[in-house]
Amino acid sequence: MPLASPLTGVVPPVCTPLTPEGEVDTASLARLVEHLIAGGVHGLFALGSTSEVAYLTDAQRATALETVVATAAGRVPVLAGVIDTTTARVVEHARTAARLGADALVATAPFYTRTHAKEIAGHFRTLRAAVDLPLFAYDIPVAVHSKLTPGLVRELAEDGTLAGLKDSSGDEGALRRLLVGLGGREGRAAGPAPGFAVLTGSELTVDAALLAGCDGVVPGIGNVDPAGYVRLYDAARAGDLELAAKEQERLVELFGMVDCGPESDMGRSSSALGSFKAALWLLGIVDCRATARPQIPLDDDSVAEVAARLRGAGLVPVR
Amino acid sequence: MPLASPLTGVVPPVCTPLTPEGEVDTASLARLVEHLIAGGVHGLFALGSTSEVAYLTDAQRATALETVVATAAGRVPVLAGVIDTTTARVVEHARTAARLGADALVATAPFYTRTHAKEIAGHFRTLRAAVDLPLFAYDIPVAVHSKLTPGLVRELAEDGTLAGLKDSSGDEGALRRLLVGLGGREGRAAGPAPGFAVLTGSELTVDAALLAGCDGVVPGIGNVDPAGYVRLYDAARAGDLELAAKEQERLVELFGMVDCGPESDMGRSSSALGSFKAALWLLGIVDCRATARPQIPLDDDSVAEVAARLRGAGLVPVR
Amino acid sequence: MPLASPLTGVVPPVCTPLTPEGEVDTASLARLVEHLIAGGVHGLFALGSTSEVAYLTDAQRATALETVVATAAGRVPVLAGVIDTTTARVVEHARTAARLGADALVATAPFYTRTHAKEIAGHFRTLRAAVDLPLFAYDIPVAVHSKLTPGLVRELAEDGTLAGLKDSSGDEGALRRLLVGLGGREGRAAGPAPGFAVLTGSELTVDAALLAGCDGVVPGIGNVDPAGYVRLYDAARAGDLELAAKEQERLVELFGMVDCGPESDMGRSSSALGSFKAALWLLGIVDCRATARPQIPLDDDSVAEVAARLRGAGLVPVR
Amino acid sequence: MPLASPLTGVVPPVCTPLTPEGEVDTASLARLVEHLIAGGVHGLFALGSTSEVAYLTDAQRATALETVVATAAGRVPVLAGVIDTTTARVVEHARTAARLGADALVATAPFYTRTHAKEIAGHFRTLRAAVDLPLFAYDIPVAVHSKLTPGLVRELAEDGTLAGLKDSSGDEGALRRLLVGLGGREGRAAGPAPGFAVLTGSELTVDAALLAGCDGVVPGIGNVDPAGYVRLYDAARAGDLELAAKEQERLVELFGMVDCGPESDMGRSSSALGSFKAALWLLGIVDCRATARPQIPLDDDSVAEVAARLRGAGLVPVR
Repeated sequence: MPLASPLTGVVPPVCTPLTPEGEVDTASLARLVEHLIAGGVHGLFALGSTSEVAYLTDAQRATALETVVATAAGRVPVLAGVIDTTTARVVEHARTAARLGADALVATAPFYTRTHAKEIAGHFRTLRAAVDLPLFAYDIPVAVHSKLTPGLVRELAEDGTLAGLKDSSGDEGALRRLLVGLGGREGRAAGPAPGFAVLTGSELTVDAALLAGCDGVVPGIGNVDPAGYVRLYDAARAGDLELAAKEQERLVELFGMVDCGPESDMGRSSSALGSFKAALWLLGIVDCRATARPQIPLDDDSVAEVAARLRGAGLVPVR
Repeated sequence: MPLASPLTGVVPPVCTPLTPEGEVDTASLARLVEHLIAGGVHGLFALGSTSEVAYLTDAQRATALETVVATAAGRVPVLAGVIDTTTARVVEHARTAARLGADALVATAPFYTRTHAKEIAGHFRTLRAAVDLPLFAYDIPVAVHSKLTPGLVRELAEDGTLAGLKDSSGDEGALRRLLVGLGGREGRAAGPAPGFAVLTGSELTVDAALLAGCDGVVPGIGNVDPAGYVRLYDAARAGDLELAAKEQERLVELFGMVDCGPESDMGRSSSALGSFKAALWLLGIVDCRATARPQIPLDDDSVAEVAARLRGAGLVPVR
Repeated sequence: MPLASPLTGVVPPVCTPLTPEGEVDTASLARLVEHLIAGGVHGLFALGSTSEVAYLTDAQRATALETVVATAAGRVPVLAGVIDTTTARVVEHARTAARLGADALVATAPFYTRTHAKEIAGHFRTLRAAVDLPLFAYDIPVAVHSKLTPGLVRELAEDGTLAGLKDSSGDEGALRRLLVGLGGREGRAAGPAPGFAVLTGSELTVDAALLAGCDGVVPGIGNVDPAGYVRLYDAARAGDLELAAKEQERLVELFGMVDCGPESDMGRSSSALGSFKAALWLLGIVDCRATARPQIPLDDDSVAEVAARLRGAGLVPVR
Repeated sequence: MPLASPLTGVVPPVCTPLTPEGEVDTASLARLVEHLIAGGVHGLFALGSTSEVAYLTDAQRATALETVVATAAGRVPVLAGVIDTTTARVVEHARTAARLGADALVATAPFYTRTHAKEIAGHFRTLRAAVDLPLFAYDIPVAVHSKLTPGLVRELAEDGTLAGLKDSSGDEGALRRLLVGLGGREGRAAGPAPGFAVLTGSELTVDAALLAGCDGVVPGIGNVDPAGYVRLYDAARAGDLELAAKEQERLVELFGMVDCGPESDMGRSSSALGSFKAALWLLGIVDCRATARPQIPLDDDSVAEVAARLRGAGLVPVR
């Protein structure tokens, strides 16, 4: 399906439920997609960082994307992460994603290797030329260890390389500079890149991002409470920022689950991904809360903390 | 003068004008203070990073603080930065600041040496016990290379060590978690640290910070356009976030001056500080736009760019 | 072929020559392997960082490894890099490498995702259990943004998970602590992990590393001058450290080629890889000096600088 | 006293013993200086990082320097650290150090503020012009968060700004490039900066540094075992690198004391400084093992571990 221009709304990065053996659990994934669509989301981002894309083999990635596309069945657009180290590898993922029915691609700057702004620009341009799907840049320095500057993003927005940005940099000042450079809250449509979408991945400050002029949000914890983010988004769009902020505060409390895993035992990324999956399991949406290797599973105390966070946010565990 | 509890409003970090010989230009500094107070600011932060505190000798720091205190003359409170590597050195600055009439102190975590959360907590507690003035923690990882976690700040807020936080971390997600932990937008007064002030130093996202529940802002470019930040603050307090965002966007454009200095010649900090001083010189507020050594002076092209930014924001250079 | 225990000597990471179209140039690669073996190297490391492994598709990786294995033809062992983000993906590369005839595997810690020591340990253990080939840990924080601590490496050496370490961390102090912990220069054979090989990737300080007790070296610029590194190694093994240091100094001068590409145009990694390939092209070993996308090609001035470095080190360009 | 040109040998950074109240214990400090001179050291570095310079007030710094100068009494030269954020502050420390009888100055790049190579060069040049004492650059990225490049150091060596370098960067490859650029192991005297001294602060790889052509070493743990480092240095100078390496290995084992403090309680810097002081106390050289605030004191278990390390290295605790 063609993407709205710009893409707007709540576009959660879809978790990839696994079986106890570590394979993609397509039945659970289909239920999760239904849960998200029922929550009112405006799009789905498959194979993102929250989807554990970095932990999935190519075959598993394909299975996950196929399941999301098939379940969405055109009700909402599906963006596909094409996450790999450099251009040739990313182009291969992009071709696969196009073949499997993705509506748009999401790619990071090169990683593992040290890179440079000119190389990053070439990377996105080559990718855009190779596969004819709308391309989103994924700015995630915590993973790739370089930052997409507002100047570079704007250049690639203006020349049509990029259809949008998913900003997970946490650098809200740079994001604001980009938004103002694109025309600001009221001038974007008459600005240098009218159809360019700016989506924030900073799920704790979505009300603020929408106030600043962002078009949408890609919230990891939106897997757990998609309806909450939709309410937040709708309130902000309707101009009721007080209500949006109130909903955001509830979601901030819920988000506290990401620290449930002990720091002595596991990385912060594993704790966060584990907590989202534990929440989905507690809510009865997925059958198993396993995360991919080599992540350490959450212990029972951590899962109990997730359950408490759910209850605190008005969500009801069924296990 | 006693500080409001919590401290609220616009509290710019006051630039320290220098003579061509590199000494504190007290006449220019007094004019700058009057310019800020005329702009409606609610407090003054002397000897902050934007004040070039790291470049000033102890004697110069004293001269600057005395001038700010004397010129303010009780019309607004004066917070004094006590910036040094570790506890004993900071305590000395704090005693001097108290003697010179500061109304509150602002201190960072230890730097130069590698530190630890328990050591940071001890640092602030020792400082609070040594000098009886309200104490603000200054979270500025770009300078001190450690981050004050929301948990640590909350602990020091609850036990009365800290009267507030100046958050220049740029980590708006962590800031939101702190604010929610303190009770959120509506629950702060009944929360665990009712008088604790949360001030943002992220001058490009002040509308968003006020929406999130921050009490005020410490904007470097507020030296140049204090009235703009006061309008932004007043609009947000009055619930008119649309107006606040519009003002914020104008200030984001103005802020673009910080990149006027060529990257091949100078650090980004020097470019920013140089641009603020060039703007104050162009506006006729200070007599000389020199920055302290070893910073590289801005060239004429850079100053012309600053002038263009001023005009673009509706401010009128007089030189 | 079975690996020596421990593996010793000069084991260069083999560059992957490309055609102008960006495909693996197997004829040039075979010539390069012959050049290295003729230089006296003791092993070959295919699909390392210097091999542009992060830029090659899976099919290209297979072609490169097959060519190296076939050309080496059992004269020296072939280690294969299995570089990918996390366990499941690395296991797939490892199975392929085993099938294609690699004699050992070289794997990094997980990257892209934030990780943890316990997860890294699990990663290596799972990999070792999945594919029955000697496993080397590749410590390269500049690429993966975590450091393998001496304690972790020693634990995995003692329990038999690891057959060796390729240390490209540049942290010579930590390396010395590891070596001393394993028994030191004279006590390794009677120490806790007698067959464990410690190879340094710090090609500018190989004399020092051999003095400290390292077993060998994996020098990127060993592609260009393998015989030089073999002389260095032989001198050190014979106890003539003066001669080793003299050879090392010549190689340090030669290594200066890595900075030939302008910093304004390209990353440092691209400049280094481009210079190695330019040198191999100038020496007539490979047909084309292209590097993989999105790296920026070296300009003619840069190539001239490479040629000057070759001549300065006594090597003779033929183009 | 005039410094040798270049300065050579073992130049430990002298610990600053404190009283239980946190003041400089001059009697203990004098004993420590005698211990170091008796151990055969070739110079003393007062007010370095290991001296807790970042924790001492200006008055305490003066007391410490005066004590070291008076006790050394011209037997060995005294280098004084002039550690502060930027030029004007460092110049003040330099004037004080000159007045108190220091034979040379040791300064870092600016810190707290973000800096730039051109600003660093100006910083050292201004400092050299302001105070007429030999000036050493102190490259310590872990503290100041910028690295002095070999090119910058060489430029400042060639133009006479710097008399030497104390390299605590841990970047042995960059150090080797500098040494080779200055003429290498045999060509330094006929090179571009013949009197320039290169001292390593990497105390675990001193044998390797001397092999590479370094002139001397500034070992923190040389406070505890100065005679060991002198033996190491003498062996390397006499060409007996095997003996040097053996001594180095013993010192690496001894150095293990730096990790005695629990990571959950204190920074790694505090643990290391605490272990050195505990060792000096156990050896009966200083009266109190206190470190400056806000460092956490070592607990008894940690001190016992220090004692075990001493015994393991053949040193005999008297407490």
